[in-house]
Amino acid sequence: METALLFKILYVIAIVAEAMTAALAAGRRQMDWVGVCLLGSITALGGGSVRDVLLGRHPLTWIEHPSYLLITSGAALATIIIARYMHHLRYLFLFLDAVGLVVFSIIGCNIALGLGMPVIIVIASGMITGCVGGVLRDVLCADVPLLFRAELYATVSIVTGGLYVGGGALGLPHEPLMIGAMLAGLALRLLALRFNWHMPKFVYTQDLH
Amino acid sequence: METALLFKILYVIAIVAEAMTAALAAGRRQMDWVGVCLLGSITALGGGSVRDVLLGRHPLTWIEHPSYLLITSGAALATIIIARYMHHLRYLFLFLDAVGLVVFSIIGCNIALGLGMPVIIVIASGMITGCVGGVLRDVLCADVPLLFRAELYATVSIVTGGLYVGGGALGLPHEPLMIGAMLAGLALRLLALRFNWHMPKFVYTQDLH
Amino acid sequence: METALLFKILYVIAIVAEAMTAALAAGRRQMDWVGVCLLGSITALGGGSVRDVLLGRHPLTWIEHPSYLLITSGAALATIIIARYMHHLRYLFLFLDAVGLVVFSIIGCNIALGLGMPVIIVIASGMITGCVGGVLRDVLCADVPLLFRAELYATVSIVTGGLYVGGGALGLPHEPLMIGAMLAGLALRLLALRFNWHMPKFVYTQDLH
Repeated sequence: METALLFKILYVIAIVAEAMTAALAAGRRQMDWVGVCLLGSITALGGGSVRDVLLGRHPLTWIEHPSYLLITSGAALATIIIARYMHHLRYLFLFLDAVGLVVFSIIGCNIALGLGMPVIIVIASGMITGCVGGVLRDVLCADVPLLFRAELYATVSIVTGGLYVGGGALGLPHEPLMIGAMLAGLALRLLALRFNWHMPKFVYTQDLH
Repeated sequence: METALLFKILYVIAIVAEAMTAALAAGRRQMDWVGVCLLGSITALGGGSVRDVLLGRHPLTWIEHPSYLLITSGAALATIIIARYMHHLRYLFLFLDAVGLVVFSIIGCNIALGLGMPVIIVIASGMITGCVGGVLRDVLCADVPLLFRAELYATVSIVTGGLYVGGGALGLPHEPLMIGAMLAGLALRLLALRFNWHMPKFVYTQDLH
Repeated sequence: METALLFKILYVIAIVAEAMTAALAAGRRQMDWVGVCLLGSITALGGGSVRDVLLGRHPLTWIEHPSYLLITSGAALATIIIARYMHHLRYLFLFLDAVGLVVFSIIGCNIALGLGMPVIIVIASGMITGCVGGVLRDVLCADVPLLFRAELYATVSIVTGGLYVGGGALGLPHEPLMIGAMLAGLALRLLALRFNWHMPKFVYTQDLH
């Protein structure tokens, strides 16, 4: 299979998975059906949108391909119907969410590489693409973003991007490197979930003011 | 009266109404006078700003016309003085807020149409223009956005934009169509407020994680 | 010393101070080390980023100079180590934070002046640069932004920018004017902290809806 097609399929899986988990968060806040669609779409497409706005890159993905808005809205609505069974699909969703994280990260890196950005910005672009959607979801639910305390979520994105950029600097062949970086990031995320790995926390109880 | 002038008047009414309701929200959070001006201005001008940033369209409205910043700040400050009487003006404000919603929606549609955007993006542009200001207000008040559970708020914007775009596809004459779509949206919003119409809610109580 | 170099030094001091106070806020929310770096960097660089996105000005500062991302991440991580002593450095940090506020404000004014913006937008650009980072920090901590109720924080930015622009209109020499406006803003902020000056608050307890 051609890589571009593979990425398109993985991208659609990723936005569907993100829209569906966001729909569950909307259900926990008792949002209405329109709110569910909006939160699902913002979560699934928000990371790439923020990346493109920061990079000054237009048109945004969903403005160029409005069908993505229909896909994310449809996935969010479908979640309302199948929500009662989603408890049984828990592991599938955590897996698809992890796939989405590494796919988004590599897509973000590729876009920054295509703009000739320096290494730090390439990795940051991958992390913004992979992680900001979830931050927007949590802010719109009036929660402190999970990203800032979750099991290696941003770390997985940084590691995936770092391996990809580092391997490129070593001259490794492009497509195997890309697949390898994604698999390594996916493995790290799944291990972190399985063994409950966390970054150390910073606990500060004094008040500066 | 010329349509452009009518829209300018309606636009100023809309930003004044949004700034004043945001000022009341600021008062409920006991913000200071500068905070009241800021929250009022962000709420009134935020929807159009986010739309233009997403569409890559510069300069933003308030950067091109800085007097709008003075209008929204002035309206927010005036709210502090007349707040004690606003309880009696409750219905007037709900009405003006509804006018603002449909005016913003049509303005957002027109801007996307002028950029040659596809139908879905035209309707989305109207909804972003009409609804995002209130989302910013609620996020800055650390609330879950009302939009995600309110009486047909986003729905009114979608219906207004949909009628406008659909009528245009049928070749209906432009100005009567625009006025008609706004009146239909306004009627829907007022009926929803009067009869307490809501979209069905999605209630999900399990924890995926 | 050359003014450009002085500003570069003041800018680095400002982003370090903002990253460190944001790191303490992250510690109060028990974020992990990656979250501390992210919150520190977003707070320190977010004001300038929002300004540039609103002005349509690319590339953003940290995209052009990725080393700033390393500085803010490093400052945030260093805070974890020295946090236990920061109580003793309380006044130093409040002072550096005030320096950052006026430096950011003048930088923001200069950028808008360079784009030929009108007076209101020049002052707004200074305020966005000086204040939005802290708003993002508070939103990401699920708090109502301190800005909307703090001791003359936004006011200091407006006064600094207003003196700078007003003095320019009077034909005062550029560099002394810039330094003078910063010192006046700094003095106002320090006096406000010392004597607990506040803008009057707007308290509204009725429910419009």
